[in-house]
Amino acid sequence: MEMQEQKPFVIGLDLGGTNAVFGIVDQRGHVLATNSIKTQAYKTVNDFVDAGIEALKPIIAKVGGIDSIKAMGIGAPNGNFYRGTIEFAPNLSWGHTGIVPLADMFAKRLNIKVGLTNDANAAAIGEMQYGVARGMKNFIMITLGTGVGSGIVVDGKIVYGSDGFAGELGHVIMVRGKEGRSCGCGRLGCLEAYCSATGVARTAREFLKKSEEYSLLREMNPEDITSLDVSIAAGKGDKIALEVYSFTGKMLGEACADFANFSSPEAFIFFGGLTKAGDLIMKPIVDTYRKSALLIFRDKPKFLVSSLDDAAAAVLGASAIGWEL
Amino acid sequence: MEMQEQKPFVIGLDLGGTNAVFGIVDQRGHVLATNSIKTQAYKTVNDFVDAGIEALKPIIAKVGGIDSIKAMGIGAPNGNFYRGTIEFAPNLSWGHTGIVPLADMFAKRLNIKVGLTNDANAAAIGEMQYGVARGMKNFIMITLGTGVGSGIVVDGKIVYGSDGFAGELGHVIMVRGKEGRSCGCGRLGCLEAYCSATGVARTAREFLKKSEEYSLLREMNPEDITSLDVSIAAGKGDKIALEVYSFTGKMLGEACADFANFSSPEAFIFFGGLTKAGDLIMKPIVDTYRKSALLIFRDKPKFLVSSLDDAAAAVLGASAIGWEL
Repeated sequence: MEMQEQKPFVIGLDLGGTNAVFGIVDQRGHVLATNSIKTQAYKTVNDFVDAGIEALKPIIAKVGGIDSIKAMGIGAPNGNFYRGTIEFAPNLSWGHTGIVPLADMFAKRLNIKVGLTNDANAAAIGEMQYGVARGMKNFIMITLGTGVGSGIVVDGKIVYGSDGFAGELGHVIMVRGKEGRSCGCGRLGCLEAYCSATGVARTAREFLKKSEEYSLLREMNPEDITSLDVSIAAGKGDKIALEVYSFTGKMLGEACADFANFSSPEAFIFFGGLTKAGDLIMKPIVDTYRKSALLIFRDKPKFLVSSLDDAAAAVLGASAIGWEL
Repeated sequence: MEMQEQKPFVIGLDLGGTNAVFGIVDQRGHVLATNSIKTQAYKTVNDFVDAGIEALKPIIAKVGGIDSIKAMGIGAPNGNFYRGTIEFAPNLSWGHTGIVPLADMFAKRLNIKVGLTNDANAAAIGEMQYGVARGMKNFIMITLGTGVGSGIVVDGKIVYGSDGFAGELGHVIMVRGKEGRSCGCGRLGCLEAYCSATGVARTAREFLKKSEEYSLLREMNPEDITSLDVSIAAGKGDKIALEVYSFTGKMLGEACADFANFSSPEAFIFFGGLTKAGDLIMKPIVDTYRKSALLIFRDKPKFLVSSLDDAAAAVLGASAIGWEL
């Protein structure tokens, strides 16, 4: 049980490539106030933090001032929890060439504790604090978005490993050798190359090329097909689109069977656009897992979809770091 | 630092399929006295525990009686730390059909705390307490024996997962689909099917079949070849035997590259017969890892071989559980 908190709120900052969204959140996961700035509109990280502090002032005032704020959590790409830094983040204009001590910078300005971790870990912490993982001590969060991310919880804590970067399950190799798809990480055959949004679109293009079957997706320029188009086509019963989900789910199920060997989680929790397809994606994941996993793990884990409201999930996840500081 | 212990010794029990070896161990990892019984010479687990207690009496007396013993640790196949049980262990005559509460049985007879875990976890704890992992908080122990086992340490603790069975890295799938080798677990393509002692012998048979190259191993009946024969041949520079090591090490290196994504360990520590081959096996492991791992993990982990004396390692590992109770 949580101890009675004297300070009832935390700040969450979801730092995306486009928007930096600040929210004030209570212990139940209600977002009481939000504000946002453009992440890349600033030349230096100092300018960004200045603008962030200005954006925070009105929403902090709204909930009773800084004395009602326990701490702040930041979810950021390439975030390192141990150091509170963002390290060589390719998509941040002021962050791609070095190590940015963002947690410390906000901590000094606000005079509260500030924690920072990567987006997928933040999602896992958010799920533990406010979502379907409440009460769980061992689970694996898998985020299916532009990339495939993961947050691994063992014994109630995120696995950070020796350097703060553990939990990169999007980069386990699913197809070995030269036939593996090229991944953004520079290697071949990663889970992310198949099961991210771009991976799903690529699977659709491959399936269209390999068959003569009619598909709604043939009405588009193949290079323009996105995972959203696949999802819309699948919703209309398009056979090729349904096969894309089946293929993607099967690979995720096989990957989960390997992951179970590591930490024997109570649940796998999925988050992100792909999960909107519901059973179309979840059924092949679960069916493949139940067929593929080692016998002792086969029937144990639950397969869940995040219960956090999409729009608020990233801010909630980030804010949840604040409760743990 | 360790607190000053009033009781200076622990008991370790290495429960193997043939011998059950008891040892009394001090905090530095010196084995002060040992005794053993035949594991399978007893019809029931009660008879086994009775015989074990009789075997312990003289060695406990030798170190000053039960008052000098802090606790007991048991390393056993299919051991479950959470429950102190051995569950459906296929190779134990009195343990293969059910759940044996062995920790409780010894605890009641000795009136000390007794902990139990599987052999690979015990090896990892032993390495932390007495071996090359002293001071490490994040590492992965890989045991290369009849099977391939693992003990995963995150934040200074063994990863047991939701059910006490986590850490089965010998059963991640390295070769997907029907071309994967059949594994003792009933599935296809597991790491263990390639990198265990029997896996290595099988690789040798496959390589002999595929090539015409002269090899010392051709002087034997193929079905009789063991991993020891491969090791002896490799020691004499036999080309096929050397290729077997190279193949095995490469697969272990690729597996470690996947494992790093999970817990970003400070080190991979190898234990078991295969490691006797030294650089023949370790060099392909390290070279493949450094080429294959995700960039952020590529140069970080050390690759180490257990420093514990072979004969005593299993008893030491088991005993080390006792310090943690």
